[in-house]
Amino acid sequence: MARTQGSHSDITGPRIRKAALNLFARHGYAAVSMRQIAKEVGVQAGALYNYTPDKQSLLYRLMREHMQDLLSALNALERCDDCQQALRRFVGFHIRFHLQRPDEVFIAYMELRNLSPENFAEIEDLRRQYENALEDILHSGQQAGQFAIPDTKIATLAVIAMLNGVMTWYRSGGRLSLDEVEQIYWNMVHKAVTA
Amino acid sequence: MARTQGSHSDITGPRIRKAALNLFARHGYAAVSMRQIAKEVGVQAGALYNYTPDKQSLLYRLMREHMQDLLSALNALERCDDCQQALRRFVGFHIRFHLQRPDEVFIAYMELRNLSPENFAEIEDLRRQYENALEDILHSGQQAGQFAIPDTKIATLAVIAMLNGVMTWYRSGGRLSLDEVEQIYWNMVHKAVTA
Repeated sequence: MARTQGSHSDITGPRIRKAALNLFARHGYAAVSMRQIAKEVGVQAGALYNYTPDKQSLLYRLMREHMQDLLSALNALERCDDCQQALRRFVGFHIRFHLQRPDEVFIAYMELRNLSPENFAEIEDLRRQYENALEDILHSGQQAGQFAIPDTKIATLAVIAMLNGVMTWYRSGGRLSLDEVEQIYWNMVHKAVTA
Repeated sequence: MARTQGSHSDITGPRIRKAALNLFARHGYAAVSMRQIAKEVGVQAGALYNYTPDKQSLLYRLMREHMQDLLSALNALERCDDCQQALRRFVGFHIRFHLQRPDEVFIAYMELRNLSPENFAEIEDLRRQYENALEDILHSGQQAGQFAIPDTKIATLAVIAMLNGVMTWYRSGGRLSLDEVEQIYWNMVHKAVTA
């Protein structure tokens, strides 16, 4: 019995996440009901509660998984000791990772206001871990005299904000390839921090 | 009679805008009803319809006014022929203007998806006018050999995205003054585009 239920959850879990993500991104968290999510998945509303205790947990889980995927993917990158190389790798990684997940990115920014204080604190902690990875690169470059940055914390936030901007305009098949986009942003980021 | 109604609208108009702005920013456009807005203003729901035909018009008007205020304020800046000076002025202007209007900025980004196609096209047109003002500066600097930018359109979007990032972390009374923030961002923007 437990096993059957488990198998069922294994199958519907990803479908629930996908439906919730899609609906939250289209209409906003506050405007979407558990009933609508169930309808989109094609199950009874009650079936959702086998998977998640409530809508808040669903939102939190979506955001946490997004941040954890981001951190895992970042940590899986080959390490490189040269700061310029490391920064260049970060720029390409950040653009490509986020362009593949427009709904998650939109929600991660927009629905922070709808997290409970405890959940917000945990998502913020994951976000900070990611920012710290970039700040470490900038700091090392600063120490090595390769970079000249008035404030590494703010430079970190500025670089991430600049790269996030790609999400608002990039369309695959448009006038620029992803390699060209990466090259253009690298040119600007590199100059912005270089001594 | 018409006069009395007119005067009444003059008074309630700004209150309706303020209430709608506040509620849209807190809960999202889709989750807020005209009834809630009326309640926040302290009038009957019917009274709102003297001011606006529907919720879509209210959202559109908020976004249009925000963009028109932005363009007017930009156009009121003293002109300067030196591209570096002009860019520096743009950086300071953009940061200060937007920090004063966090709700409008949040809505302008987040609720684009909820505009009707016609309204979306008009807001996009205003947004493009603003972007063009920055692109003109970058283009002039490029022509004058002061700037070296692989793609002025993308550099425009990158600079704006970077500056918008200030909104996510700046708190007045925090560790940095607004002048310091402006100086740090100017340092990075300047280096990013300079030849």
